Amino acid sequence: MSGPGRIALAQLDTTVGDFVGNALKIRAAAEVARQAGARLVVFPELTVCGYPPRDFLDLPEFLARAAATLEELARETGDDAEEPSLLVGYPEAPAGAPPPGIFNSLALLQRGKVTAVGRKTLLPTYDVFDETRYFLPSDRVTTTSSALPGVEVGLSVCEDVWNDPRFWKRTRYARDPVKELASAGAELVVNASASPYSLGKQALRERMLSASARDHGVAIAYVNQVGGNDALIFDGGSVLVGRGGTVLARAPLFEEAIVAVGVDGSDPRILGLDGRPLAAHAPAEDPDADELFRALVLGVRDYVRKCGFKRVVVGLSGGIDSALTACIAAEALGADKVLGVAMPSRYSSDHSREDATLLARSLGVGFGEISIEPMHAAFLAQLEAAAGKPLGDLSEQNVQARIRGQILMALSNDTGALVLTTGNKSELAVGYCTLYGDMAGGLAVIGDLPKGWVYRVSRAANARAGRELIPERTFTKPPSAELKPGQVDQDSLPPYDELDAILHAHVEERLPLEAIVERGFAAETVRRVLRMVVASEYKRRQAAPVLKVTEKAFGEGRRFPIAHGYRY
Amino acid sequence: MSGPGRIALAQLDTTVGDFVGNALKIRAAAEVARQAGARLVVFPELTVCGYPPRDFLDLPEFLARAAATLEELARETGDDAEEPSLLVGYPEAPAGAPPPGIFNSLALLQRGKVTAVGRKTLLPTYDVFDETRYFLPSDRVTTTSSALPGVEVGLSVCEDVWNDPRFWKRTRYARDPVKELASAGAELVVNASASPYSLGKQALRERMLSASARDHGVAIAYVNQVGGNDALIFDGGSVLVGRGGTVLARAPLFEEAIVAVGVDGSDPRILGLDGRPLAAHAPAEDPDADELFRALVLGVRDYVRKCGFKRVVVGLSGGIDSALTACIAAEALGADKVLGVAMPSRYSSDHSREDATLLARSLGVGFGEISIEPMHAAFLAQLEAAAGKPLGDLSEQNVQARIRGQILMALSNDTGALVLTTGNKSELAVGYCTLYGDMAGGLAVIGDLPKGWVYRVSRAANARAGRELIPERTFTKPPSAELKPGQVDQDSLPPYDELDAILHAHVEERLPLEAIVERGFAAETVRRVLRMVVASEYKRRQAAPVLKVTEKAFGEGRRFPIAHGYRY
Repeated sequence: MSGPGRIALAQLDTTVGDFVGNALKIRAAAEVARQAGARLVVFPELTVCGYPPRDFLDLPEFLARAAATLEELARETGDDAEEPSLLVGYPEAPAGAPPPGIFNSLALLQRGKVTAVGRKTLLPTYDVFDETRYFLPSDRVTTTSSALPGVEVGLSVCEDVWNDPRFWKRTRYARDPVKELASAGAELVVNASASPYSLGKQALRERMLSASARDHGVAIAYVNQVGGNDALIFDGGSVLVGRGGTVLARAPLFEEAIVAVGVDGSDPRILGLDGRPLAAHAPAEDPDADELFRALVLGVRDYVRKCGFKRVVVGLSGGIDSALTACIAAEALGADKVLGVAMPSRYSSDHSREDATLLARSLGVGFGEISIEPMHAAFLAQLEAAAGKPLGDLSEQNVQARIRGQILMALSNDTGALVLTTGNKSELAVGYCTLYGDMAGGLAVIGDLPKGWVYRVSRAANARAGRELIPERTFTKPPSAELKPGQVDQDSLPPYDELDAILHAHVEERLPLEAIVERGFAAETVRRVLRMVVASEYKRRQAAPVLKVTEKAFGEGRRFPIAHGYRY
Repeated sequence: MSGPGRIALAQLDTTVGDFVGNALKIRAAAEVARQAGARLVVFPELTVCGYPPRDFLDLPEFLARAAATLEELARETGDDAEEPSLLVGYPEAPAGAPPPGIFNSLALLQRGKVTAVGRKTLLPTYDVFDETRYFLPSDRVTTTSSALPGVEVGLSVCEDVWNDPRFWKRTRYARDPVKELASAGAELVVNASASPYSLGKQALRERMLSASARDHGVAIAYVNQVGGNDALIFDGGSVLVGRGGTVLARAPLFEEAIVAVGVDGSDPRILGLDGRPLAAHAPAEDPDADELFRALVLGVRDYVRKCGFKRVVVGLSGGIDSALTACIAAEALGADKVLGVAMPSRYSSDHSREDATLLARSLGVGFGEISIEPMHAAFLAQLEAAAGKPLGDLSEQNVQARIRGQILMALSNDTGALVLTTGNKSELAVGYCTLYGDMAGGLAVIGDLPKGWVYRVSRAANARAGRELIPERTFTKPPSAELKPGQVDQDSLPPYDELDAILHAHVEERLPLEAIVERGFAAETVRRVLRMVVASEYKRRQAAPVLKVTEKAFGEGRRFPIAHGYRY
């Protein structure tokens, strides 16, 4: 590689289908990059339409708008030598072909037109990805000498770099696009990505990209989307990796950034979309828990905004789950945009009501209390009169949870605030939650956090604030749904540390029952947990989108039948 | 093709993951086929594990049980010349490779072992299908001379015959497995399928199979799965098509059947799993509506049974949607397994309560009435006290719907009956339904029937019964949710015939707004409808599985983001 060319990695937070808004961001980023001396600006996968567009790609007018936006952006590029060329992701529909006849492509925009197109070669179909539903794989790779003076640039899209079995065992692809690009003479491989966050993913990406750069003797400019889209949180973390495998420049996680840097690593500048340098993120005591907190904050902020909401409402039980959810919401939206509601019943303890009040006060969120007693009594009377006998234990517990869900939904309908659900992954896994009750709401904020992690992330939230945002007693008291007198979670469930370990082995590692037992758990406990997971699929099918922060979250990435005969 | 060989098409209703039960059915069918003189029995796609297993395929122990079941079935085949060979579908995991490294295969079981394996070549990834998530495509086709004396038999699986652009425009495959099999010498092509029902699909299948048989000069034995699995209804309709394109034998729709027939079409026998001849289905006045009714009956019956329920509960409003839902449930399960519940409010009309009572009586289902007034009053009082002002119109309507949903769920919890939801496709499309209210329940029985079809299928239900099962007034009164005084659906929605036509053009035909307007609808109406569809995705994401009966149902086959910026 020769010459002092500068490139910019434009880590943007696009919105699916917002062609006008996305184009504005592309223009703003291009201007920041120009001022920072970049000759080439690389944008994420499908920049023009946002990722993942899903079945919007099935609508001809969606593809037409994407094509029109790309053309407009191309026309705007000029002949001025100072003006950078743009590499922009878009859905390419040759001759208006509908899915699955389209390509996931990257267009080089310069001198008023599209001068080169690279197409995605490897199409993921695991976990949350359905790319063969829409796209055809490219049968060749594309390099161009016109993107950056004196540098042969190879074009690749996301999965094209995820083909190294040393790092990524999910799939085994027959081709290696980076190798093919290197063979075709590429000195710098550009990778436009939309790679969703999970804990530890960035370290994995950097190890993989470094190895790939070294193996093939190329530099890699990796540009990842940032921002939340439904269940997925894209974390950014764009990097320029030198041909020796060293990370030469790095964008922050969880925020928009333009990284302008020489292809040799010289003079890196990390800028915001307003052109100002971004502040470095302060180190945390528990970096993993802090990272999860920041991921969830971004996920909530973007879901609320991209759905057109301004405010949220959260039921506060006095427990750790709702405390953390409210805490994340306050950080994401501002405390004044969050309403906490305590909904005590005849079984609620004094400490629960106190802790809910205390939390709302320490967060500075709005707070209200609505007793469920009148509705509780009315339901019991009507249902018992109809049945001619007392309501069963489970029914009565669910009645309470559903009254609460209904109160929150009424507040939502009346105030235009989105309801956030507060259930954690451990509960959702075993069905320790009430459909239309505590599961009622638009977004399951901590639905991918096992209970143990809920505590850790809550500690991290307090550490960030430098004070007891979440009251200490909320950490120390035994978890309870308080749906009957003296109830605690461990009446119905194994201890959470045991439960979480079994669930991790089953859901994320997909280990067979026997292998889980071999880790030292009682066979009966493991069997019981696995049965609960399988039996509660119907609840999860009707759950709100769960913000994904692990390798395997409940939702689109995990697809099980409800009706079946599989028995543990 | 030579010789008088007889084959049997075993159209079975398997259950996903019920290896023991599925093997018992395979054995029973083999015995019926043997007694009917068949030398080869062909079973549906993935017979051993049921279709669609979805992410169960990700669990190593699931694949191991499938392999063990296949081995056991193979061992049971003997050397007796009278004993038929079996062609059984199964997930083939070479060397224990996990997805996506497995094959969707068909094994020939005879003489105590597996003597041939054919693998699926074409893997669908549109609509409800995600087959590249799990399977690798075969790179070759398999024929065998040992399946049937004197006949070269070609093996294919489902999509392998769906590659003719004259009939099926969804995908364009580069290969044509039937052609390849014919070139390889196949005289009879076997196709093991799990092809889901939609209205008119069987006629399409037969036209396509006939054309394929003629084009390639082969006979085709097409064996389709029957039965409901979550949202999908597999309709059977297995056929033997002669090399001239004539349908020589045909299994009925919506029931298990063994079709034993000479490969030349001689002596066809249509038998049940008990070996008795199946009765022919009586012709109907409106065959399409009658077919939809029977499809939904099967869908409900199997969902309830395969989820382990015995009984269902349905809210009866006195309107056509809940009437048809109860009617389907009574046909599916028996009237004594259905409880209808009227839940009148202060806004309910006398005729609604009368019509609900009348319907329950004519169906012979259990019936109860529970007034929502006490809960309604309690919610209003608590919510208005908290807000310091009257509840908004929409909130109050939703409160009522949600009290009803909650009553049904309490009855479900207390009696073990599954709640069926009663919303139709038109409502679900535009969001004219209440999340956690009328949407609460385990299965959306008529959620893929547009309102116009609800009336037609209801007429067909009455015609089948030969009496006014559903009261005449239910057909003639204007549809109303009765959530406020004097309310009718057309206060909020365009007339249903117009709405249904616009929705069909948008959802099933995927036409752009302009093309819909060109059909003669007001641009403002079309725009309003499309906006409602896009804006209510969040409700559908939390809906119960919708029984699919059209080409494009809401649910797994239609995947749109919730958070986005796409505007009509």
